[in-house]
Amino acid sequence: MLLTLDLDSEVPIYQQIRDRIVEAIADDALTEGSALPSTRQLGADLGINFHTVSKAYDLLRAQGIIRVNRKSGAVVRRDVRSGPPEPGFADEWQQRLRTLLAEALVLGLDADEVIRSSNAVLSSFGTKEATSS
Amino acid sequence: MLLTLDLDSEVPIYQQIRDRIVEAIADDALTEGSALPSTRQLGADLGINFHTVSKAYDLLRAQGIIRVNRKSGAVVRRDVRSGPPEPGFADEWQQRLRTLLAEALVLGLDADEVIRSSNAVLSSFGTKEATSS
Repeated sequence: MLLTLDLDSEVPIYQQIRDRIVEAIADDALTEGSALPSTRQLGADLGINFHTVSKAYDLLRAQGIIRVNRKSGAVVRRDVRSGPPEPGFADEWQQRLRTLLAEALVLGLDADEVIRSSNAVLSSFGTKEATSS
Repeated sequence: MLLTLDLDSEVPIYQQIRDRIVEAIADDALTEGSALPSTRQLGADLGINFHTVSKAYDLLRAQGIIRVNRKSGAVVRRDVRSGPPEPGFADEWQQRLRTLLAEALVLGLDADEVIRSSNAVLSSFGTKEATSS
């Protein structure tokens, strides 16, 4: 599994690992039911402590994205993209979207750029595009 | 200034204050050049320690959204929305957008809902809407 970490980022490494795995699933680079590397293996590949990888896997498990057991290790849940969202998730997610879009507008991106970015991201995930009206 | 905090949220209070102020500026509820309450005043209004408010103001100042001086207190910078974004901001912001959209798709929102949410948020800020293609 190829994950690119940014060691200069303010985002903690475990959060970056978690984020890159979520993106890989959205991207279909990592499919439902597929196994993740062991924490020791991924830690060695990335040159970081395996506890940091464990922390990322704990987050993914807490959000119901992977399951972990002794026999098969960490596996992307087969139902992760098919089930309905957890109650409250949509509202909580929309609040985070609101904050992120506000930040873009306040810090100098214009609405067209925001729409272009959303399009680029959604189409990179192979989903429908939004278009500027 | 009316700020609604969610005391049950996992988002730290200082971060919520910072986020609500950014949204208020995007919303034009808080205009450029306008003064924020003093940290003691806002702390008293919200029933929280003024140090928590200071931490939020520190974040806003570090991002160039407000300026703070002894005489006038904390003020929304007049040029905050007119200037170009800081170098690197657009890339860093798009990476966060990518993570947020991936999370929505992986945790069960569909692309249409994501587009509808983006539309709702952008139009609440009085900007152009994106539309589903």
